[in-house]
Amino acid sequence: MHSLLNQFKSIVAIPIAWGDMDAAQHVNNIMYLRYGETSRIAYMQSVGLGFDLSKTGVILAEINCKYKMPLTFPDTIWVGTRALLDSFDDYSFWTEQIVVSQKKQRVSAVIQAKLVGYDFSNLKKSAYTKRDKENIFAFENPEKRKV
Amino acid sequence: MHSLLNQFKSIVAIPIAWGDMDAAQHVNNIMYLRYGETSRIAYMQSVGLGFDLSKTGVILAEINCKYKMPLTFPDTIWVGTRALLDSFDDYSFWTEQIVVSQKKQRVSAVIQAKLVGYDFSNLKKSAYTKRDKENIFAFENPEKRKV
Amino acid sequence: MHSLLNQFKSIVAIPIAWGDMDAAQHVNNIMYLRYGETSRIAYMQSVGLGFDLSKTGVILAEINCKYKMPLTFPDTIWVGTRALLDSFDDYSFWTEQIVVSQKKQRVSAVIQAKLVGYDFSNLKKSAYTKRDKENIFAFENPEKRKV
Amino acid sequence: MHSLLNQFKSIVAIPIAWGDMDAAQHVNNIMYLRYGETSRIAYMQSVGLGFDLSKTGVILAEINCKYKMPLTFPDTIWVGTRALLDSFDDYSFWTEQIVVSQKKQRVSAVIQAKLVGYDFSNLKKSAYTKRDKENIFAFENPEKRKV
Repeated sequence: MHSLLNQFKSIVAIPIAWGDMDAAQHVNNIMYLRYGETSRIAYMQSVGLGFDLSKTGVILAEINCKYKMPLTFPDTIWVGTRALLDSFDDYSFWTEQIVVSQKKQRVSAVIQAKLVGYDFSNLKKSAYTKRDKENIFAFENPEKRKV
Repeated sequence: MHSLLNQFKSIVAIPIAWGDMDAAQHVNNIMYLRYGETSRIAYMQSVGLGFDLSKTGVILAEINCKYKMPLTFPDTIWVGTRALLDSFDDYSFWTEQIVVSQKKQRVSAVIQAKLVGYDFSNLKKSAYTKRDKENIFAFENPEKRKV
Repeated sequence: MHSLLNQFKSIVAIPIAWGDMDAAQHVNNIMYLRYGETSRIAYMQSVGLGFDLSKTGVILAEINCKYKMPLTFPDTIWVGTRALLDSFDDYSFWTEQIVVSQKKQRVSAVIQAKLVGYDFSNLKKSAYTKRDKENIFAFENPEKRKV
Repeated sequence: MHSLLNQFKSIVAIPIAWGDMDAAQHVNNIMYLRYGETSRIAYMQSVGLGFDLSKTGVILAEINCKYKMPLTFPDTIWVGTRALLDSFDDYSFWTEQIVVSQKKQRVSAVIQAKLVGYDFSNLKKSAYTKRDKENIFAFENPEKRKV
């Protein structure tokens, strides 16, 4: 696994589909965001953040993707997600995600996504609970939890 | 509008997106089914068939697509949907859909889709009501309704 | 692996993405065709059928999908592809594909896809070579090859 | 048309497909990028920037999307694209795009996309020509061209 993935505790492997490529014969730009979504949801499950539509959850408020190297079929990618702990305020935090080609052993894209706590029953933003934050910090820095 | 569309009372126009094409530089095979779905849902709305997940609606049981001519960007397609009235039994009927290229003025694909009545609360198939059938027959043959 | 997969020598595993689901909260109907395409391309690579756009290859002429059981995230599917050897004529043959849920251990969909040999430089159908057929028959029935 | 679109000379209308929605019953986050791509390609055609894979063209280097308001089916959106003229350097410039709901008459998303000139035959970045820049500036400010 690529050493840059060392900083990521939540990583998924995704096989590139031939149909993910577009007429320019590379993986289409929007597919990187799909890969990122898949990894982000795995991360959310790891830290106990849900998106139960009957209660509270998170919504995507902003996303940024830097395309570093095109992907082509066939390949399998590693997609890691981590929380950027310094970015937390009451209602939001940023995640960072990297997409790494197993075939090329290089980073293909870096994504940052801002997740806002959301109350789906009242349709308004909702502060993250103390427990939510503790779960995320503990997941990212398990040794600190013990202190 | 293409004369073959004369047999279709429910028609939607859909602009082809560049990103609908794949690495073979034609519209990808699965996108025809997306176009068909879009037209089928417009049809369902026209005849009063919903898919309210809390009640009853329809599910797709089988689909067939004959690819006649590749589509390319830029183009806009007409997609017509009609019910095949002879196909009705208590629980299901077939729709037929054609995809017509405005640029080429030719049929690009013919789709047939089998729609089964479904009770989403009890998770089992559900007979179409007399009213459902009357609405569909009246939509397809408005003059006959008057008899 | 599901026993029905025994009849398939070419099988790929595909993780379902959360984003493959639609507003009915099941995997969208067109995604089954994407999964089928992915497995079919792996099959074509196994038997040496390419789709080099500068030469000859295959195009998809018709597809049929029977939806047996809805898929939901999270799940991983097995998708097997085989040639229906009795279907061969000079220019075409049918493949059959099954989509099996690992979570449910049941068949979710059965797809049949007709592949027509195609000459991309002259834009017309092209007969399969004796070698193409031999490769496919040998792949499906390796023991018979020895006879 | 929404007054915010006044600043955009290149605007496309795109009907939302039911299948663009995901299990959260809103249009999925990646579809906004597909809509943006469609509008960006129309813009490129308007200013004479191609992406002929045998010559030079542009590639997407970075994208940012701020999600302002969820979209739902049925709706049609206006998607405008303009060049941010101050962002030009020899090799790149940023475009800005807005996605406006016709149903809600509100901005749903704002996208910024960095386009880098690219030489597809030599696989390296390529400076925009004087003519490329003149075309873009003239498209954005036709009155200035006359000076």
